[in-house]
Amino acid sequence: TGKKESFFQELVNILLSYVCKSFRRSSKVLDFHHPHQLREGLEGFSLELPDQPENLEQLLVDCRDTLKYGVKTGHPRFFNQLSSGLDVIGLAGEWLTSTANTNMFTYEVSPVFILMEEILLKKMQEIVGWSEEEGDGVFCPGGTMSNLYSVLLARYHFFPEVKTKGMTALPRLILFTSAHSHYSVKKSAAVLGIGSENVVVVKCNDWGKMIPAELESSILTAKDQGCVPFYVNATAGTTVYGAFDPLNAIADICESHGLWLHVDAAWGGGLLMSKRHRVKLQGIERAWSVTWNPHKMMGAPLQCSAILVKKRGLLKDCNQMCAEYLFQTDKHYDTSYDTGDKTIQCGRHVDVFKLWLMWKAKGSEGFESQVNKCLENAEHLFDKLKQRPDFELVFKSKPEHSNVCFWYIPPSLRNMSPGPERNRRLHEVAPKIKAKMMEQGMAMIGYQPLGDKVNFFRCVFSNPATQTEDVDYLLEEIASLGHDICIRAETDL
Amino acid sequence: TGKKESFFQELVNILLSYVCKSFRRSSKVLDFHHPHQLREGLEGFSLELPDQPENLEQLLVDCRDTLKYGVKTGHPRFFNQLSSGLDVIGLAGEWLTSTANTNMFTYEVSPVFILMEEILLKKMQEIVGWSEEEGDGVFCPGGTMSNLYSVLLARYHFFPEVKTKGMTALPRLILFTSAHSHYSVKKSAAVLGIGSENVVVVKCNDWGKMIPAELESSILTAKDQGCVPFYVNATAGTTVYGAFDPLNAIADICESHGLWLHVDAAWGGGLLMSKRHRVKLQGIERAWSVTWNPHKMMGAPLQCSAILVKKRGLLKDCNQMCAEYLFQTDKHYDTSYDTGDKTIQCGRHVDVFKLWLMWKAKGSEGFESQVNKCLENAEHLFDKLKQRPDFELVFKSKPEHSNVCFWYIPPSLRNMSPGPERNRRLHEVAPKIKAKMMEQGMAMIGYQPLGDKVNFFRCVFSNPATQTEDVDYLLEEIASLGHDICIRAETDL
Repeated sequence: TGKKESFFQELVNILLSYVCKSFRRSSKVLDFHHPHQLREGLEGFSLELPDQPENLEQLLVDCRDTLKYGVKTGHPRFFNQLSSGLDVIGLAGEWLTSTANTNMFTYEVSPVFILMEEILLKKMQEIVGWSEEEGDGVFCPGGTMSNLYSVLLARYHFFPEVKTKGMTALPRLILFTSAHSHYSVKKSAAVLGIGSENVVVVKCNDWGKMIPAELESSILTAKDQGCVPFYVNATAGTTVYGAFDPLNAIADICESHGLWLHVDAAWGGGLLMSKRHRVKLQGIERAWSVTWNPHKMMGAPLQCSAILVKKRGLLKDCNQMCAEYLFQTDKHYDTSYDTGDKTIQCGRHVDVFKLWLMWKAKGSEGFESQVNKCLENAEHLFDKLKQRPDFELVFKSKPEHSNVCFWYIPPSLRNMSPGPERNRRLHEVAPKIKAKMMEQGMAMIGYQPLGDKVNFFRCVFSNPATQTEDVDYLLEEIASLGHDICIRAETDL
Repeated sequence: TGKKESFFQELVNILLSYVCKSFRRSSKVLDFHHPHQLREGLEGFSLELPDQPENLEQLLVDCRDTLKYGVKTGHPRFFNQLSSGLDVIGLAGEWLTSTANTNMFTYEVSPVFILMEEILLKKMQEIVGWSEEEGDGVFCPGGTMSNLYSVLLARYHFFPEVKTKGMTALPRLILFTSAHSHYSVKKSAAVLGIGSENVVVVKCNDWGKMIPAELESSILTAKDQGCVPFYVNATAGTTVYGAFDPLNAIADICESHGLWLHVDAAWGGGLLMSKRHRVKLQGIERAWSVTWNPHKMMGAPLQCSAILVKKRGLLKDCNQMCAEYLFQTDKHYDTSYDTGDKTIQCGRHVDVFKLWLMWKAKGSEGFESQVNKCLENAEHLFDKLKQRPDFELVFKSKPEHSNVCFWYIPPSLRNMSPGPERNRRLHEVAPKIKAKMMEQGMAMIGYQPLGDKVNFFRCVFSNPATQTEDVDYLLEEIASLGHDICIRAETDL
């Protein structure tokens, strides 16, 4: 065990030096290699699984290599994902969680974590604006699963017979979500046996917000066709634009038609922590369920996503199977704390402790200032982009969330008139720059097309380590990588 | 950052001393408190979430308390769950995973982990016995999700239109699983919109194994009723008895009726690592999909569960939604490594690294001897029980897996003749002993009723730290706690 102890000590040194490097601007965000290069083994880093044991020294080398060829998602210049940053207290929480190595299904094996989950859910429900008497929930393995729960619960609420009889006992159900919403709504419909074609995609305005009148007319059309609308997903913070759907207007429509209102605030939920920004989610308290991922805007380590449900008891009624080997009713403690029967999983990872510990370390106010700072970074980027002739904003209005969307315009396109040829060429710019950026490894940002808009960059801020200097660096980096890229004219193809 | 560094150093000390304590027999497995006691706060351990930050010293106290009031699942006398043990290399892997803090959806943010997943899945498929050309898979958040995938994939394989049109476009589907199988099969049917009543529960023999003739006649009955059988779940290692369904006989039936054969080897899969025991899973190579949880019999930290799928491409066809913001097709690397579109999640926790690192540390042979040892412990317990007049085995034959099921017979019941009154009293024995055991905190074991059998203890071995002395201790503990328990006669009630 002396050997094991010094192994752990050395591992901790490796990990902590990685943490320090993650925050250092001079270090690379990534050291990119293609899949075949990594597969073939780099400088003795072999991924193959042996029959015989390797020694502890070799394991430490493996650990070092794993980190070396990975991506520093905590680096202040990692802008690639909605989840970024490396909160050291959250990290400490994860280390403890894995050391405790237990399961969330019953109180008897997770007494403390079960209570922490209850307290966190209660707090989040209070912040959403639900009353003392309302509210239930569970932490899920990611926002897509949280959204899936919402559809599952809505279906069960209106048609409880579905649990035993299945969808064949039901009329044709229709659900609604906006064109800019996350793909998990369609995915949930596919998984749950509702079918992705029964998801009506409601039009958005130019800023990516669902148009309430379009929702209303979609509902009426579905009813006319003999279908049964039952669920509306409104998004608070869309994935690409960061748009907030008008929740109160949507809630009015849901009320008048008796539909379940879910708010996917996976990305936007963090703004509820900020007095300045929570106004953007006005009406969220009218939702029947809410997805909120603290692993995004609140900077908790992956994964940490909650589904909050207004109606108490529904989660349990919908999902319980009363397995007697696990949920014995003749236990000597209050078995309402055996929350595992509320979930669609059996075993469940402990995702709550890191968030609980971060909350202790920062207080609600710490989250508030963290969120405010991320949005200030977005405003800074927006202001810079407005001033630069080599960039073009996807829209001219100030960002509501921390998403900022823009094109880099290389010199060869700057004097071209708008039209299909310019679009075709502009579409190739972002992937080319991204490829070069990954080879260089000094920053990382995502891009995508959307609707009639060709490939553009989406910058997002959720890492409190990012400063305005990093924002400035990003623009210089893009401009320098993009300045001399060559996009062939149509006639050269 | 100097303060943060010493915080981490102190945290590591707390965690490593917890690890040592977990292995020490003189330390308690748990320090039990009822939910209301923990909620009210014990010796200043407050679970409430503050507005203002707490200092680092207080956080360390919180961490210590969290562990103090938890359950040592790595303790050699923790027999409560199929997952137990605390593999220190696996733990090191988890610490690294949380430090890397990334997401499994794309190669660009998880290059190394994506490749490790591919290599682990390939290895596991090879061990199952599939050919080079066969096999796909994904790591899932728990065995229930892996089983859900299997039903989802089977449905899509036979009725690909379900993805877009939903279940209403389909005939009434029926699936089959044994009376002793895990409740996740029914749960999956409920979630997927198939309905739990459309799960036919096939009778088992006295040892908990599915009876093939019963399966065959259930299939014929379902067909006669105009339903469409499509899927059979066979279990390799049932939850309570540890029984292995006769896979070859079941595979024959599936073949002749053209049904999808899934093998739930969540618990039994580990035995594939052992030349001595893998014969119990003969026929598994004929499965169309397999669930295998390395976090159970192979001792990987929670969670680590794989769904293996024989037919390549099916996972992707069934689940992909081609979200353009994430799975851009114009990336500069081979995007077949962006495996996120194969899953029903979007973000996905890295569950592979710990297993990869353990495999490096032990080699396949290390897993083999670990599995063999757990089964030897089960045999030791079985032998002891046979010799003791104060215990009664649920069945007399040698255990196939590491599950051993038995009753403790208190003195007052020893001379009673079998019958309802003895059963009624015996049913109360295990919960009463378990309650006392949890208050004492020196060991932990589960119990449940099953079929016509009243509450009995189920002992399971998956912790390589457990020695025969711990098995002996468990029996003495149960006997000493149960010796003087008072069960009231019917006439006293």
